[in-house]
Amino acid sequence: MPDTVRLSLAEIRDLSTEVFVANGMSQSNAEIVAGVVTSAEADGTHSHGLFRVPGYVSSMQNGRVDGKAVPEVTDAAPALVAVDTKNGFSPPAVVAGRSLAIEKARSQGIAAMGLRNNGNLNALWWDVEQFGEAGLIAIAMSTTRSLVAPWGGDKALFGTDPIAFACPRAGKPPMGFDFATSAAARGEIMVAAREGHAIPEGWALDRDGNPTTDAKAALEGVQLPLGAHKGNAIIIMVELLAAGLTGGNFCFEADDQALEFGAIDGGPSNAGEIIILMDPGGYHGSFLARIEALFDRIMAQDGTRIPGDRRYANRARATEEGVDCPAILYQQILAMKTG
Amino acid sequence: MPDTVRLSLAEIRDLSTEVFVANGMSQSNAEIVAGVVTSAEADGTHSHGLFRVPGYVSSMQNGRVDGKAVPEVTDAAPALVAVDTKNGFSPPAVVAGRSLAIEKARSQGIAAMGLRNNGNLNALWWDVEQFGEAGLIAIAMSTTRSLVAPWGGDKALFGTDPIAFACPRAGKPPMGFDFATSAAARGEIMVAAREGHAIPEGWALDRDGNPTTDAKAALEGVQLPLGAHKGNAIIIMVELLAAGLTGGNFCFEADDQALEFGAIDGGPSNAGEIIILMDPGGYHGSFLARIEALFDRIMAQDGTRIPGDRRYANRARATEEGVDCPAILYQQILAMKTG
Repeated sequence: MPDTVRLSLAEIRDLSTEVFVANGMSQSNAEIVAGVVTSAEADGTHSHGLFRVPGYVSSMQNGRVDGKAVPEVTDAAPALVAVDTKNGFSPPAVVAGRSLAIEKARSQGIAAMGLRNNGNLNALWWDVEQFGEAGLIAIAMSTTRSLVAPWGGDKALFGTDPIAFACPRAGKPPMGFDFATSAAARGEIMVAAREGHAIPEGWALDRDGNPTTDAKAALEGVQLPLGAHKGNAIIIMVELLAAGLTGGNFCFEADDQALEFGAIDGGPSNAGEIIILMDPGGYHGSFLARIEALFDRIMAQDGTRIPGDRRYANRARATEEGVDCPAILYQQILAMKTG
Repeated sequence: MPDTVRLSLAEIRDLSTEVFVANGMSQSNAEIVAGVVTSAEADGTHSHGLFRVPGYVSSMQNGRVDGKAVPEVTDAAPALVAVDTKNGFSPPAVVAGRSLAIEKARSQGIAAMGLRNNGNLNALWWDVEQFGEAGLIAIAMSTTRSLVAPWGGDKALFGTDPIAFACPRAGKPPMGFDFATSAAARGEIMVAAREGHAIPEGWALDRDGNPTTDAKAALEGVQLPLGAHKGNAIIIMVELLAAGLTGGNFCFEADDQALEFGAIDGGPSNAGEIIILMDPGGYHGSFLARIEALFDRIMAQDGTRIPGDRRYANRARATEEGVDCPAILYQQILAMKTG
């Protein structure tokens, strides 16, 4: 058997949708979540692609996440939308609140959408890109589960708590980024453990609180914040905004709750997420022209690039050529088609 | 002559006010800016304290900053306040827009205040703390001048572009942080150069683009972003929000403009700043109680602390005992009393 299987984006989408529906997701939710899986594969962020499908399935099988959840959207204030994900997957909740959030950002100048009771950690780039395409600046932050020690400590308390950012551009797809505020994303360490790679120093401590470069020891131990005290402060900010403000679980609360279900899928329980939206038109009409001058200055130096450009290069290639999936993972997912 | 002079906070405030007025600042602006200098000294962030006074004076003397500027406040949208600092110092502009911004955040749930044409880079903690004390969560970002190379490059383009955050607490002062999104603040390197200390690796390149630990070589070279590509992405976000959205100068524009005045004071020219304000009451009533549970969990681990706690400890000590100022700096400032 070859090590990898080449799949087209359409095949990834159809397979994911079929597997999700066979295992208890509603058709409409499955189409949205499969779209996220497909986008992640296309963009080269495989840790949020097919790699996540078995975990999503097991989280429905063990009853921790409700694949048929119907998100509840509340008009919470003139510039606030609150969405209760109802213990379902978060992408359908983002879609449910999207049009109201866009309308508020455009009319008020700035708005926020808070999500609570998220059953999974989504690839946040997907959450913000759609607002960037609507002409808005978007910042998203999400809690996950307890995986990261506070700076100076050695026990898991915070999540890998990602921040994503998208900014519209004239005649081009949005620029932006999506990364963990821990030194590494969980998925990066999971992929290293699966493939037998070492991880850099500074990413994690082992179960005894000692620094480690062994990915498996890191998964049994605790991750570390990005950039010492600065990353630690940013992670606390994410917890306060994504969970504190929205009513979603702090990571330590999510962890306590997930343990009741065994949590073998590794996802968060009832996590929180905040998406802040700003309308550039409200401030300064020449915004789109001015930022191109900044991007030109960045690209005028050798060795630089605009955040997100590699993602779009990956996407163009994947659309043309498809994506290589590890054969073992592909067989595992195929076997889930019968539920 | 002793190396340091012990000054009370009242002496720092009175001296700064007198020197500012003697050198062209209006009395009302001088009282506000002197309050910032005093707060910075009290909190132990000396790089924004008396150390800045000579630069503020020279920036008025060379005509780059207007000490008598009267900020212009515009009600830009239901959730947006725009303030034109009119090429003055930024703290009076924050004060001018404050009550409208607070009112909007409370009524809309989220609001933003954008400042443009700032003549100096303020200690952003001062900007956000007052909103935290008003019960709001505040995030501030500001551009400075071109001091930092984009990731992969070796020429100054971005600023040290700080982010500050404040979150209200029940019965306690706000928690939060204020730091450069470059590996180090400019002031940290200036202090190291003044005192003859080496700086850590990863902070800067020298004028030839080589890594350096020599503070003076770093000041002649270029600083580096925090945490490689992640910090680089965050700096770009700060430029887009603080300057792009507000109409303030990007750092490279500020730099071009400052050079016309010689810029010996090292401050930015017509920089931008954005302050995002969120009302915790709008989302979740138990916010203040829930976040204390998170802080308790952090403090339950040995070696941890809540961001901002050292600042308050410094402030309590400074209020009681005063602050030590380098004698050379004190004499330099005293000599400016006659303008």
